[in-house]
Amino acid sequence: MTDPTPAHTAALTHWTLTLVCDDRPGIVHAVSGAVVAAQGNITESQQFSSADTNTFFMRLQVMAPVDRATFEDALEPVVQRYDARVQLDVVGRPLRTLVLVSKAGHCLNDLLYRQRGGQLPIEVPLVLSNHPDLQELASFYSVPFEHRPVTDAETKHDMEQRILEAVDELDIELVVLARYMQILSPGLCAALEGRAVNIHHSFLPGFKGANPYRQAHARGVKLIGATAHFVTSDLDEGPIIEQNVVRVDHTKDPAELVSIGQDEESRTLTQAVRWIAEDRVLLDGARTIIFK
Amino acid sequence: MTDPTPAHTAALTHWTLTLVCDDRPGIVHAVSGAVVAAQGNITESQQFSSADTNTFFMRLQVMAPVDRATFEDALEPVVQRYDARVQLDVVGRPLRTLVLVSKAGHCLNDLLYRQRGGQLPIEVPLVLSNHPDLQELASFYSVPFEHRPVTDAETKHDMEQRILEAVDELDIELVVLARYMQILSPGLCAALEGRAVNIHHSFLPGFKGANPYRQAHARGVKLIGATAHFVTSDLDEGPIIEQNVVRVDHTKDPAELVSIGQDEESRTLTQAVRWIAEDRVLLDGARTIIFK
Amino acid sequence: MTDPTPAHTAALTHWTLTLVCDDRPGIVHAVSGAVVAAQGNITESQQFSSADTNTFFMRLQVMAPVDRATFEDALEPVVQRYDARVQLDVVGRPLRTLVLVSKAGHCLNDLLYRQRGGQLPIEVPLVLSNHPDLQELASFYSVPFEHRPVTDAETKHDMEQRILEAVDELDIELVVLARYMQILSPGLCAALEGRAVNIHHSFLPGFKGANPYRQAHARGVKLIGATAHFVTSDLDEGPIIEQNVVRVDHTKDPAELVSIGQDEESRTLTQAVRWIAEDRVLLDGARTIIFK
Amino acid sequence: MTDPTPAHTAALTHWTLTLVCDDRPGIVHAVSGAVVAAQGNITESQQFSSADTNTFFMRLQVMAPVDRATFEDALEPVVQRYDARVQLDVVGRPLRTLVLVSKAGHCLNDLLYRQRGGQLPIEVPLVLSNHPDLQELASFYSVPFEHRPVTDAETKHDMEQRILEAVDELDIELVVLARYMQILSPGLCAALEGRAVNIHHSFLPGFKGANPYRQAHARGVKLIGATAHFVTSDLDEGPIIEQNVVRVDHTKDPAELVSIGQDEESRTLTQAVRWIAEDRVLLDGARTIIFK
Repeated sequence: MTDPTPAHTAALTHWTLTLVCDDRPGIVHAVSGAVVAAQGNITESQQFSSADTNTFFMRLQVMAPVDRATFEDALEPVVQRYDARVQLDVVGRPLRTLVLVSKAGHCLNDLLYRQRGGQLPIEVPLVLSNHPDLQELASFYSVPFEHRPVTDAETKHDMEQRILEAVDELDIELVVLARYMQILSPGLCAALEGRAVNIHHSFLPGFKGANPYRQAHARGVKLIGATAHFVTSDLDEGPIIEQNVVRVDHTKDPAELVSIGQDEESRTLTQAVRWIAEDRVLLDGARTIIFK
Repeated sequence: MTDPTPAHTAALTHWTLTLVCDDRPGIVHAVSGAVVAAQGNITESQQFSSADTNTFFMRLQVMAPVDRATFEDALEPVVQRYDARVQLDVVGRPLRTLVLVSKAGHCLNDLLYRQRGGQLPIEVPLVLSNHPDLQELASFYSVPFEHRPVTDAETKHDMEQRILEAVDELDIELVVLARYMQILSPGLCAALEGRAVNIHHSFLPGFKGANPYRQAHARGVKLIGATAHFVTSDLDEGPIIEQNVVRVDHTKDPAELVSIGQDEESRTLTQAVRWIAEDRVLLDGARTIIFK
Repeated sequence: MTDPTPAHTAALTHWTLTLVCDDRPGIVHAVSGAVVAAQGNITESQQFSSADTNTFFMRLQVMAPVDRATFEDALEPVVQRYDARVQLDVVGRPLRTLVLVSKAGHCLNDLLYRQRGGQLPIEVPLVLSNHPDLQELASFYSVPFEHRPVTDAETKHDMEQRILEAVDELDIELVVLARYMQILSPGLCAALEGRAVNIHHSFLPGFKGANPYRQAHARGVKLIGATAHFVTSDLDEGPIIEQNVVRVDHTKDPAELVSIGQDEESRTLTQAVRWIAEDRVLLDGARTIIFK
Repeated sequence: MTDPTPAHTAALTHWTLTLVCDDRPGIVHAVSGAVVAAQGNITESQQFSSADTNTFFMRLQVMAPVDRATFEDALEPVVQRYDARVQLDVVGRPLRTLVLVSKAGHCLNDLLYRQRGGQLPIEVPLVLSNHPDLQELASFYSVPFEHRPVTDAETKHDMEQRILEAVDELDIELVVLARYMQILSPGLCAALEGRAVNIHHSFLPGFKGANPYRQAHARGVKLIGATAHFVTSDLDEGPIIEQNVVRVDHTKDPAELVSIGQDEESRTLTQAVRWIAEDRVLLDGARTIIFK
């Protein structure tokens, strides 16, 4: 062959490749063959075979001098043969993220601060809130902020329509509920399945009902924490992405527990969003595979 | 000086003094006055005023050249004036401990290993079990072991009678349920209130029902742990003494989670028992004050 | 007595009382007597006897219906008898803090964010910098920012004069070097002794010379961290206040190590400043006593 | 099928395969092809491309119904083409380990306790010591113990000869310096390069000279720890395998710091030995790649 293929002419790109399929022998060989065909070099590789669902999960980072179409062509035989779901992304490309907030700013602040500092590959074209409180914070980071009061069924419906509209118009890939204190309707949960992440406090043992920090204080819990999870219609029961706890003792009153808990919420949510933005989170039934 | 008081003649002893009373001004001054009267030097001091219950808690370690009767005499005015519950103990005195077990040996092994190594100030005059499995482990550590099968209401009643009898005959100060897989009757719980400690696994979020490790695996939890608590009639809901968690990921199958969880159970229970044996655990309503 | 003493007329105030003196019997009794005289109630108490320097350290929180003069009068006999250094402060009073910065904003951001959120009892009347980069960040938090280039011996001298002047004019109690990339002169260090805190990265093992993160990467260290310490003329060798580390592995390049290290720097410095602002840090020779 | 290949006749074996070579495209494809040729199924896979040394590192676990010769034949083309160093091992095979000790038994105890409990895949045909103190401990675990006093240059030379001899005669794969308080000669270090691991305490910041725990106490360090590393002729400067720290405070005297530090030494050394025994540690210049 005398003339260079298109593969030779594209710029060297750092790709993320995730693949999910039924677990069968030979997959690694087939995928690595496709990488060779795309003149790629594997720079990072993780895989996992789930015995629960007989599913094979793989995440590669590949340095390759090809454009997307060429890489996809090289992968096509693998997709066909193994009936694999394959996703190609460019390393470092910012994930288009819609953030929903209410009054508490600790999670939004952490997301925007780290995004601006280059530590979190997201871009935030819009912050939507049912309260005006965080307008100023969003402005400081030059992020558009939209306030829509939610006071009854009708305004709640309007807000949910606006969320879906924004997801559509702004090419949103991830919706982050950064202490958004409204329960999403089942319809919205379904519409955003696998694309929305929530954060909530966590205790050992769990507490139901109002004011869990007060209950935690009354029981003298020694650990409080936070859980980031995908949103599903089953409230706070979606696949867990990340959890953290921190030690507390009897000297902390409920207000201090809230403050400590908020720190855990911020760092846990930011970590979860980072992993999603880096294509490190894959779903295996009701649980997540995290390729750190 | 021709008339040495009894205080001068006793050996220098390292005392632990705990005091609980309604919170009122002047307590610390009164207690430290009693310590001065007993020629004592305070080597460690902790206190806490619970706003929840308006109760004052104090733990001192005092080096004093007095015997128990003399120290108690010096404390008597404080006890009278503040209606205080005071407890005097000698630092390092082993706590007389009855251990209840079933089949799993990880907690018993940790308790006996650390007790023998001088890291845990307890003595174990008896291990009682509803299964014979841990006989050999107890023998290795030269601890008497008694097997009483529990198969129905009658044998369960017999076992509970035997527990109460042993507590009485052997001057037991603490009953440790070291993975004892029998639910105690409300009567026994009441009889042992504040003197019995239990350990169970803990998850974020909590799981109800059988085989929680399998549920935790299915939900992909990222943290598993253990909680040591006082026994009350409300199953697994007594005042929490200590909690620990450890990070896990999607690669762990349920059996591995069990193994990891058992390590947490062992170290958490041993820590709780150590604090109790060192008079560091005080009750404030439904929660514990831990003076580490 | 028919007329109320001044003690009765003052508002109920929550005081912090720290006391340092040679270790002798009876101090606790004497101090608690002074608290009783001031009609105070001890809400928090910590003490430590340093065997190294035969020094006794104590920190109390006292709720008392007295003004400063009355409390000081009550303490005077203790000060006299034990030759004690006593300091009285009001719980929650913001510490007047001067922050020095250069280009990196992670530490300043964390300080100001938590100060504004009510989690850090400081007030910052001025940020001084040898670079203009952080002007905008300071503005967002409505904190005055002053830029003074330091390019040679003369401008360095000017900057140091300005620091001393600001400390004086603005009643500064603490100077925080929040990644201020200039070595302070011995004279300035001496002038600020015990009142200035610095943060620097820390490794196991330590690395000397330029670009320690590159060295840490080359040696494949598994832990990187940060140390907050008081400023002394012996560069980076002052009494340590707080240290943290975080686990890293071979996949992190030097730039990522820098980013991870910065997170540790922020949280470690903020923690140290919080403890100082709450009067929890006392000096025992070359080391600190921290009453958490 | 009438002609079964040898591959079909061997028992199903769980292999560990590590591979190191210059980083070039196509390696993963070539290796996975060899695994397919050996009818193997990859159960665990890790890889890393070091930008520092342009080296590719890979570790696989492969379930394959082939004997060693057959697997090696399948791998031969990869070895040839990429000039790769390949190592095949059977998962769980105990590593033949020589332990060197002096007086302190905490590291030896932890190694032998975990080895006997099935948590550490090593076998210890000999413990060599320059002191007799740990004879009894070795006997309890039925491990041969040899005492050779080292008092001068000659006895030191004899000991080093004995070490080399033992390595040779006993097919030793790893030499563990479990608090062996003798500096190895450069010649011995060179002879054991990559096959000897040492443990030492670590502090933030580091301390030079005698009695580092006393220095750490005097400086009031807040973290103490331990580092396990390969032995090189540059004392305590070999490639780091594992590090741990634990939090301490001003109440700990130097003896307590030593005790706490020893716990870190034990668990850090045992962890490093476990990873080596499981073929998880590869050398990349002066640093280690750890495939956990």
